[in-house]
Amino acid sequence: MSHISLPEQVPGLIALAQQYPDTAGPLFMLAEAVLRGPSPLTAGERELIASYVSERNESLFCTESHRATARFLLPDPGLIDRIGGPEGTQAAGEKLAALLAIADAVAQGGTCVTPALMDRARQAGADERTLHDTVLTAAIMCMYNRYVDGLGAWAPEDPNHYTAIGESLGSVGYTPR
Amino acid sequence: MSHISLPEQVPGLIALAQQYPDTAGPLFMLAEAVLRGPSPLTAGERELIASYVSERNESLFCTESHRATARFLLPDPGLIDRIGGPEGTQAAGEKLAALLAIADAVAQGGTCVTPALMDRARQAGADERTLHDTVLTAAIMCMYNRYVDGLGAWAPEDPNHYTAIGESLGSVGYTPR
Repeated sequence: MSHISLPEQVPGLIALAQQYPDTAGPLFMLAEAVLRGPSPLTAGERELIASYVSERNESLFCTESHRATARFLLPDPGLIDRIGGPEGTQAAGEKLAALLAIADAVAQGGTCVTPALMDRARQAGADERTLHDTVLTAAIMCMYNRYVDGLGAWAPEDPNHYTAIGESLGSVGYTPR
Repeated sequence: MSHISLPEQVPGLIALAQQYPDTAGPLFMLAEAVLRGPSPLTAGERELIASYVSERNESLFCTESHRATARFLLPDPGLIDRIGGPEGTQAAGEKLAALLAIADAVAQGGTCVTPALMDRARQAGADERTLHDTVLTAAIMCMYNRYVDGLGAWAPEDPNHYTAIGESLGSVGYTPR
C-alpha cells in the first residue's frame, strides 16, 4: 500500500504525476532532456543505464519500466537480460560495461566515482559528454527511484503492464504533446 | 580535480550548468518547482531538509549552499547549526524532526521509508502534501548530490563563497529571469 493517497491501480511515477501535477511537469521535462536529448549515447543505451541503476536501487517499477523501454529501443533487445547484474555487464561490450561501473558508483554515492572508473571508460572510447551523460542519467534515476519507492507507489507484478509502458516511453518519450 | 573539463574556479552545479546548459534548464526548473513552488512547507524548511540530506550524502558543495540558503530564509538562522546531525533534529521541533527522519530514510533508499516513519510525521501534524514534498525534496537532493560529486565539481572551502550563494538562492531562487 502506498504511503500517501494515490489514484488506485495507477503504477509508480504515473500515479504520482496524476496526484501532484505541478511537480510532474518539471520531472518529466528533465527525463526527456537527459534520456532523449542530444547525447553520444543512444536513447536505448541510456535506458539500459537507467534500468541498471534502478535495479541496483531495488526499485521494481523503475527497473521493469526502463528495462521494457530499453528492450523496445535497443537493436539487440535480449542484451538487457544477458546483463542481469554487475557480473554480466561485459555482455554490453567494454565501453558500456565501463559506463555501467560508473553508474553503479553513482548509485552508491557521488563520492564513490573515482578517476580510475573514468579512465577505464575513456580508454574504451567514452568522450567527456558520454561521461557527463552517464553520471547524470544514473543520478536522475537515484531520484526517481527514491520518489516512487519513498512514497510506496504501486509496482504491478504483471509483466504485460511494463511492455505497454516500454512501448509508450520508447515511441513517444516522456513529454507527449 | 573534476572528473571532466569544467570552467575553472566555478563551483558545483554552477560549473556543470555553464558547461552543459541543455540539461541545466530542466534541472533548475525542477529545483524551483520543488524548493520554491506551492507547499505547506516554507522555502526555509525545504532548504533545511535539502541541506540535511546533502550532509547525509557527504556532499560538501550542496550541504554548504543549502545551509547558507536555509540560514538566509529561516526566521531562526541558528537552527541549522543547532541541528547538526541526526542526534540534533529535535532542535527543529517534533514535526520537522519527523520529516528529517523520513528524509534520512530516503537518502538511504526509497524502500527504507516505512509506515512507522510516515505515521510519526502525521501524528506531529504533517499532511499528505507535506509528506510528498519531504520525500520529493530528499529525492531531488540525492540526484543533485550525485551529479555534482560524481563529476567531481569544485567545492570551495571559503565559507564566504556559500554566504553569497545562499543570499542569491534565498532571494532570487533557482530560475532567475
